[in-house]
Formats: sequence, C-alpha cells, structure tokens
Amino acid sequence: MDSDIYKTLEAIGWALETTPSTQKFSDFAASTIELLARVQLPDGYLNSYVQASGEPRYQNLASSHEWYCDGHFIQAAVALARGTGNQDAMDIAIRLADHLVKEFAGQSRGLDGHPIIETALVELYRETGTAAYRDLAAQFVEQRGHGLAGDSGFGRRYLQDHLPVRERTTEVGHAVRALYLEAGVTDVATETNDTQLLDTSRQRWDDMVAAKTSLTGGNGSRHEGESFGDRFELPPDRAYNETCAAIASFHWSWRLLLATGEAKYADHMERILYNGFAAAINTEGVRFFYVNPLQRRVDHYEKDDPGRRREWFKCACCPPNIMRLLASLHHYLATSKDDTLSIHQYATAAVTGADLSVDVETDYPWDGTVTIRVTGAPAGERELALRVPAWSATAGLTVNEAQDSSERVPVPPDRYLRIRRAWQAGDEVRLRLDMTPRWTYPDPRVDAVRGCAAIERGPLVYCFEQTDQAARLDELTALAGGPLTERTVTLPGIGATIQVSAPGGHVPPREPAAAWTSDQAPAAPDERAVTVTAVPYFQWDNRGPGAMRVWIPVTGQAGPV
Amino acid sequence: MDSDIYKTLEAIGWALETTPSTQKFSDFAASTIELLARVQLPDGYLNSYVQASGEPRYQNLASSHEWYCDGHFIQAAVALARGTGNQDAMDIAIRLADHLVKEFAGQSRGLDGHPIIETALVELYRETGTAAYRDLAAQFVEQRGHGLAGDSGFGRRYLQDHLPVRERTTEVGHAVRALYLEAGVTDVATETNDTQLLDTSRQRWDDMVAAKTSLTGGNGSRHEGESFGDRFELPPDRAYNETCAAIASFHWSWRLLLATGEAKYADHMERILYNGFAAAINTEGVRFFYVNPLQRRVDHYEKDDPGRRREWFKCACCPPNIMRLLASLHHYLATSKDDTLSIHQYATAAVTGADLSVDVETDYPWDGTVTIRVTGAPAGERELALRVPAWSATAGLTVNEAQDSSERVPVPPDRYLRIRRAWQAGDEVRLRLDMTPRWTYPDPRVDAVRGCAAIERGPLVYCFEQTDQAARLDELTALAGGPLTERTVTLPGIGATIQVSAPGGHVPPREPAAAWTSDQAPAAPDERAVTVTAVPYFQWDNRGPGAMRVWIPVTGQAGPV
Repeated sequence: MDSDIYKTLEAIGWALETTPSTQKFSDFAASTIELLARVQLPDGYLNSYVQASGEPRYQNLASSHEWYCDGHFIQAAVALARGTGNQDAMDIAIRLADHLVKEFAGQSRGLDGHPIIETALVELYRETGTAAYRDLAAQFVEQRGHGLAGDSGFGRRYLQDHLPVRERTTEVGHAVRALYLEAGVTDVATETNDTQLLDTSRQRWDDMVAAKTSLTGGNGSRHEGESFGDRFELPPDRAYNETCAAIASFHWSWRLLLATGEAKYADHMERILYNGFAAAINTEGVRFFYVNPLQRRVDHYEKDDPGRRREWFKCACCPPNIMRLLASLHHYLATSKDDTLSIHQYATAAVTGADLSVDVETDYPWDGTVTIRVTGAPAGERELALRVPAWSATAGLTVNEAQDSSERVPVPPDRYLRIRRAWQAGDEVRLRLDMTPRWTYPDPRVDAVRGCAAIERGPLVYCFEQTDQAARLDELTALAGGPLTERTVTLPGIGATIQVSAPGGHVPPREPAAAWTSDQAPAAPDERAVTVTAVPYFQWDNRGPGAMRVWIPVTGQAGPV
Repeated sequence: MDSDIYKTLEAIGWALETTPSTQKFSDFAASTIELLARVQLPDGYLNSYVQASGEPRYQNLASSHEWYCDGHFIQAAVALARGTGNQDAMDIAIRLADHLVKEFAGQSRGLDGHPIIETALVELYRETGTAAYRDLAAQFVEQRGHGLAGDSGFGRRYLQDHLPVRERTTEVGHAVRALYLEAGVTDVATETNDTQLLDTSRQRWDDMVAAKTSLTGGNGSRHEGESFGDRFELPPDRAYNETCAAIASFHWSWRLLLATGEAKYADHMERILYNGFAAAINTEGVRFFYVNPLQRRVDHYEKDDPGRRREWFKCACCPPNIMRLLASLHHYLATSKDDTLSIHQYATAAVTGADLSVDVETDYPWDGTVTIRVTGAPAGERELALRVPAWSATAGLTVNEAQDSSERVPVPPDRYLRIRRAWQAGDEVRLRLDMTPRWTYPDPRVDAVRGCAAIERGPLVYCFEQTDQAARLDELTALAGGPLTERTVTLPGIGATIQVSAPGGHVPPREPAAAWTSDQAPAAPDERAVTVTAVPYFQWDNRGPGAMRVWIPVTGQAGPV
C-alpha cells in the first residue's frame, strides 16, 4: 500500500504546480514526508511492510514490490520538487536511490516483478544529474528477460522476464507491468541515445496498437493474469483494460512522442485520455472502474468485475493513479524545441514555450474549434505547430481571420500544421477540426467484433446503452455506413453530452433460443425505421446497469467480412 | 488425489464388466481395496490427506473435497459391485456412507465445495435400497444455495451456493461443479418423484444448451474460475470447456434422458461424446486436453492452456474421468421400458432389453447406416425404438429389406422411429441417417462468432486446421451455404478420416496492420477459387501447433447478421 500513498504525494506535487495555495495538499505532503524521513533506515531502505514485518529485504522481488514502491516514491519526490521547489522528499529519494545503487549496481541479485523503478530512476537522474541513477535504470532494463525476477506464480511471461527487451517483438503478460516497463525502456533509450533499444520499443508499440489494443485505447484482453492476449484477441466483453494500463500506455506514448515527435503517439494519448482513461470515473467522480470492457451484457456477472463502477476495490492502485494523471495533465499539452512550440493536445490553457506565450481556448472534445491567442512573443520568427488528429479528415487554419472561415488547408504527412512568423501579442490562430461523427471498422482478424462497426466523433469513442434504445440492445443492428445524426442533450446522470444516432434494424430473436442451428441461416434484420443511439463511451454506466456495447452488429451496404 | 484413484477403480469396475478376464485390472482393484479397508477408520471416515496430515475433519468443506472423494469412492464401489459382483469395496462404501449419515443427516454443518456425493449416494441407494443414502443426497441438494459451503476464495456463485437449486434458472460458477450438482439434482428428483425439482433442472439444461454451450458440447466460457459466463458469451478462442465438464454434462443429460425419454438429451450426449469429449485425447491416446477451445491462433500462448494436448497436468482430474466414461460407454447406448427397447446411441454392440437381443453393426460416426440384427426374441410383440438425431434431415428405415433402399420415412416429432412386431431371430432392421455435410449458423446473440458458420457432418463438428489450407487461416473465409464436398483420406498423425471442403475467399490483410480504421470498411474477400478444408474437431492438434478454428468467417448468399 506504500505506493498508493506515494502516488497521492505525486499527484499533490503536480497539483501544487497549478494550484500552489491548496493548504490541505501541502499539509498532507509535509506530514507524510516528515514521517517517511523518520522511518527511513540509516542505510536508505524504506518499505513499511518489510520494516514492520521484519521479513528479510529483497528475498521475494517477484512479488514484494519493494522497488515498485521505491519507484513511486522517487517519482513523487520529483513531482514535489518540480511542483513546489521543496526538496524534503528529494532528500529521502536520493538516500533511497543511493541505497539501491549500492545494493544492486553491477549485481544480479534479482529484479522487481513490477516495473516502475526504471522511469523513476531516469526522472531522478534528470532532476539531479547523477548518472548512476540512469545507469541503474538501464541495468534493470537490460537484466529483464533472463529469469532474474523469479516467479510470482504466473510464470516469466507475466513479468516480461522470458525474453530480453531487445529481442521481444510483442507485448505479453501483465499489461500494467509491460507498459510501465516500456516507459522505462523508452526513458533509458532516450537518455543513453540508444537508437536500437528505442526502435524495439517503437516496434512493439506499433504491434500493440495494431493488434492488442481496444478501440478505447485499453490494453489487456484477459482477466487471467490481467494480461495481454494473442494478436487480434480483442474481446469487447472480456476485455480487461485495467485503468492503470491506460495510464501506463499514456506515459509510454508520451515518452515516444518526446523521443520522435511523431503525431501517432499524440493521437494514441488522446484516444486513451478521452476514452479508456476518462471512462474510469463516474460523472460525480466518486466511483471508479478497475476493469474497462467495451460491452456489458444485460445479465452480466463476474466476481472480479461487476460491470459497474465501484466505490472501492481492495487492490486500490487505480484511484491514486487516476489522481496523478489528472493532476499532471497540463504537462502533456505541448512541447517546445528550438524555436518551435508544438501543441499536441487541445484544452483551454495558458501555454508557454520557444519564448512564445499563448492562451488556448476550446470546447474540445465537443467542439473542433481551437483558438490560440498570442499573449507574449519575442522579436524574430517562431513556429507554432498544431497537431491534426488522424480522425480529422480535413482541417481549417487561419491567422487573424476577419470572419468565420470554412476554408480547408492541406494537412502535411506528419499531421502538424506549422505557422512560422514574427508573432505579435494579440495574434489569433484558429484551428478547425472535423467533428463529423464517423463509422469505424475493425480489422477482419479481430474475430470478436467481426460484422460490427463502432461510432466515433472527434476523439470520442461512442457506445450504445440500453436506456437509449427502443428495443433490446442484443437484438439491434446498425446500417453500416448509414447517415449519422448528432444531437446536443442533457441526460440525467450524465449531464451535457452529444448523442449520435444511426439508422438500424431489429433482429427478431430465434425462438426457442438456440446457440446454433443447421436448419437456417440467421434471420435478416427487419429494417423498418429503427434508430440506434449512442453516447460517449466515457459517460457510460451513469444511468443504471443495462446492457452496453461499443461495437454494434451491422448490415447493409458497407457490410463487413 | 484420492479421487483420481477412486475414478480409476470405477473405470476398472466398468471395464471388468465387458472384459472380466483383465487380470491387471482386478489385481489393482483388489490390492487398492485391501489397502483402503485397512486405513478406513473404525467410525467409517476415510481421507488420505486429512488422516495423514492430522488436520481436523470437515473444517474446510468449501475446499477440502472430503465428500467429493467419498462420492468418487462410493461410485467406484457401485461400479465394482455391478461390474464384478465383488462386494469388498461396497463394504467400505457402506461404512463410509453410514458415517456421513451419522455425521450430517439433519445437520447444517457445512457442504462440500465440489458436488458428486449427491449422485454417489443415490447410486448407493439404488444398489442397497437404503433410503437414508437417498435422503442425505436430497438434503445436500436442498442445502445448497444457503451459503453453507463457505467460501473457497471465488465466492458463493462459484460453488452454486448463492441460490437454492429450486430458484436458480441458469448455470453459473465452476462448470464441473455445477454439472455434477445437476446430475445429483436429477437423480434426487427422479428417486423422490419430485417433478418440481426435476423441472428446474430441465429448465436450466434448456437454458445452458441454448445460451451457454459451445458447438462441441463444451461448457465453461471463462478461464477465470473455470466457469460459465453470461448468456451467449461463447468465445471460441477463450472457451474453457474443461474435459471434466463435458463428462459431467454427459452424465446429467443421461439422467434427464432416463427421466423423460426425450431425444434432445440423447442428441446432446452424442454431441458431447464425439466432439467436446472425444477431442480430449490425441490419436495415440497418450496426451490430453484439460481445456478444449474452438479456436487456436497461430501465436497462441497462455500459461494455463498451451493450446496443445499435454502428457500430464498437475490437476489430473481429467484422465481418470476420461477412463471412467470410456469404460462405461456401453451403459449409454440403449434403454428398455416395459416392452420397448430404445436405442439412443449407435455403435457396434450386442444389446439386450425388453427380452430382445440384438446385434448392432455400424461404421458410425463416419457412416449413417446402422444394421440391427435380432439374435433373440420372445413370443409376442416387442417395440424397437430408434433415435433419429436432430441433425439427420431424413431417415430411412427398413425391415428385412431385399435390396438397398433409398426410401425415406417420416420422422415423428419425438424423433424415435418405432417398429412394433413379433420379432424372429435373424430379423434385420436397417436405419439410414443423413450424413450429408451441413452448414451450421450461430444465434445472432453469440457475439463472438458473428459472421461465421461451422461445418458439421453427422454427429461430428468440423474444424479448419492451418495445415489443410492454401493460405493463412486468419485470412480465409468460406462461402456461406456453399456446396460441401467430402473426401475419405488417411492423414499422417490422424489416420483415417473424412475431410470436408467448401468454396471460400481470401481477405488480403490490411497493411500496415490496424486494429480499426475509419478510413474504409474492411476489404471484400477475393473469391477466386479458394477452397477451405475441414477435418473432424476431435482429430485436431495431431499434426502440429498451427492455427485452428471451428467457426469460419463467411461471405456470400447466406450472409450472416
């Protein structure tokens, strides 16, 4: 449980960066750090379970989460230092990291079953400049894949310890562990200029997004081991898609964006953020999903996933993880390099970089118009680069337009629209993205959603909830490629949203029910004026326990394989 | 592990019934029973783990399997008594059962987490006439559903202990436990003439076959808890379909057939026997499946199921279970009641009943012709009733035909063809079933195989193995409703079989691979003269580790929803 406290401290660090006057946050951080300083052992070791139980250190790294907790503490200390300037937690973190270097640098004594120490040590290196931390992270990355982590009961693949990272081509095992490890691999590759290592990580990312990721950006196709499945094994009903895996994938994609500047990584961060991650908490913010499937049947039951958000869950890794991502969202909007300020994610915010200061204003993700007003600019030219998401078929871009423009501009292959000029305070750039709702089709190898399509609008994946339909959801189909109509509404339990409707059909249930029959092919749907209606996936399960599905069976012109 | 020995003893009992001179079987049984007689405690208690460990009795019935082992021993004793006439094991079983009656009759001290004691006690009642055994079984059946079994860590549903059996409408939890319990429920209902109890079991059977059973007759849609899933949650790749669940379902269906005489139960036994059960062992009979999925992807990996038959598995419940069913198959062919001999399953055998003796000769399941030759008949009329499986669209039936007849007879609604006459030794009845290969379609609510069809031929479900295809299996489709051609072949690793081929198409893979896209609907398959070829499912995985699928995506005229 130490890690839950540390993730809370990290969230506080980032929160104090944007809202420094929040006294209860700084009080909690101060008293917790004071306590930790007292209990940290003289040699730097710090772990409440091991210290309280008297069990030996580092005897069961496959399961003990000792480095995992260390990693979360180090990351929290970095957050508090960056967010507040306070170094109290950093003092503890440095003692802890020095202890790890002393104990493990150059050694092969074991490997934590749950990565995160890797990113944390690189972050500490960035903050302190102490190369030993980066080098220890690099060592841990290279040591994985040789059976050093032992066995936590689920085998070496579960711990990504069956193959060295430089040789592995696909994600396997526990999804959160795999993805935290990848963030660490990318961090190490970046800070050591190791192109070969970076390329293996990029290749696995491509493979994962193509063949092991849900439309919502979620990862983990199996409840068994909370793990990745085979390629193209992407069941909507049995998807595990742990909230923490979404966060880990977001962190990894961010690092790859930083390392490469490629828009696809920012696209994927957006997909995760507004769908797989955003769905985790309910409208009121008081319940959460640990598991994020893309379908809930009307009679769903499973012990490890009730199909409803919960108030609490004994493995409470997700809530503080959600906190630390929400509290740090401002980090992920933009980057600067040389004289270019790149905006990757759109939200109302004040952004500075490359000596430019701009105010961004938008109703994203509902509206595709983004207004960027320059509030401060240096002499000379600067470049503003604006990401056009892959889903936006067209884009409009104007500078200081006199009146609303419907003009479209060509989107370059790298999908960053670039404006280079001598900026003046008051200059106003307007980006217009295409929020027209669209049909999305699965790869034919995704067996579990064959014959289905999904609806997306802007960055939002949509889903069909029973409460919005005129017939039983499991008897409805949609007309593939049919016209989509949107409607702004306020729904009880959800609040403001945009519904999207499509023409559909009704499949009369076979009576008596039979899982299969050789007597007849399935009945064609009755297409008399049935409409199916979808709401954003992230807003599901705010209106009761009825059926839900993201992928809906389709009939008609754009019929699937 | 006691139960594995007991199941072996049971198999020996049934085997000695048909091959009484097998000395190594009777020697093993005699020495084992002699040992058990020595270690059974004076009060009748018998359990190697509890007796050797010194742990208290009946303190952890949710997990201890004490009654479960008792049940398997009692069933073994009944088998040995029936198969050999030897009562040595029965003496132990009666002491054990008397002990259970003394300890638990009228008590609410607990309930075993794993049913089978229920059927065993009813069997012992049938063998001894002691009503207390039947009544204790009835008590255990009624006590389930009240939380008496405790929690083995998977919750009350896992143990079917969340709702009384009279109130439950669907199968949930651990599939083997659920199905052994149902066999017990049916036994108790039958022996106590409890129509209401029987009806609840029949209703759940209908629900299970319609919405929670694989085409192969397998049960258990989830690896998690080896359990049933939601209604219509029937993933081919992630189906668990434990071999023991197939056996338990066979046992339950048999009891419902005895209780009702309805052909659907015999149909389902046949489906299980030739598919879900028969697939468990390889051609050479030296490897077995614990898990029986309907699809294996080319890159399949899972720790708890390698997708290949194994030589051994630490939870070794399946092999002795397979033995006891194989050794008792002769029990399940026919029944007699009053002056009617009903033949439910077709195999070469000598059958007696209703004072008739007949020799059955057939190449079933390869050939649909069944010849029944009367070898002994009494004076007066007797009825011979022959089941026509639901899959046989037509049936031929002749008595003492002069030459091959292609005439078809009407099949009555109950699907038993009946011939009542005064039989003479030498009379010959010929039944001809329709073995034409056929397409089978899933219910549209079975999301996981939407847009797919399967091939069946007679009682055999077919599957597509990579080795028989001209292109990657995951890029192939079949023409729905297209002509099926069969070919008798001998295949390495399999031996004699009948392949079935269908016209198909090839779906070019999307490049680069993408789990989804909004840019385009999936490509239509290229249908230039591609043929897809299937072999019987029970013969799969005898030719290497390539991809396999029972349900194949279809295109064309009989296109699915």
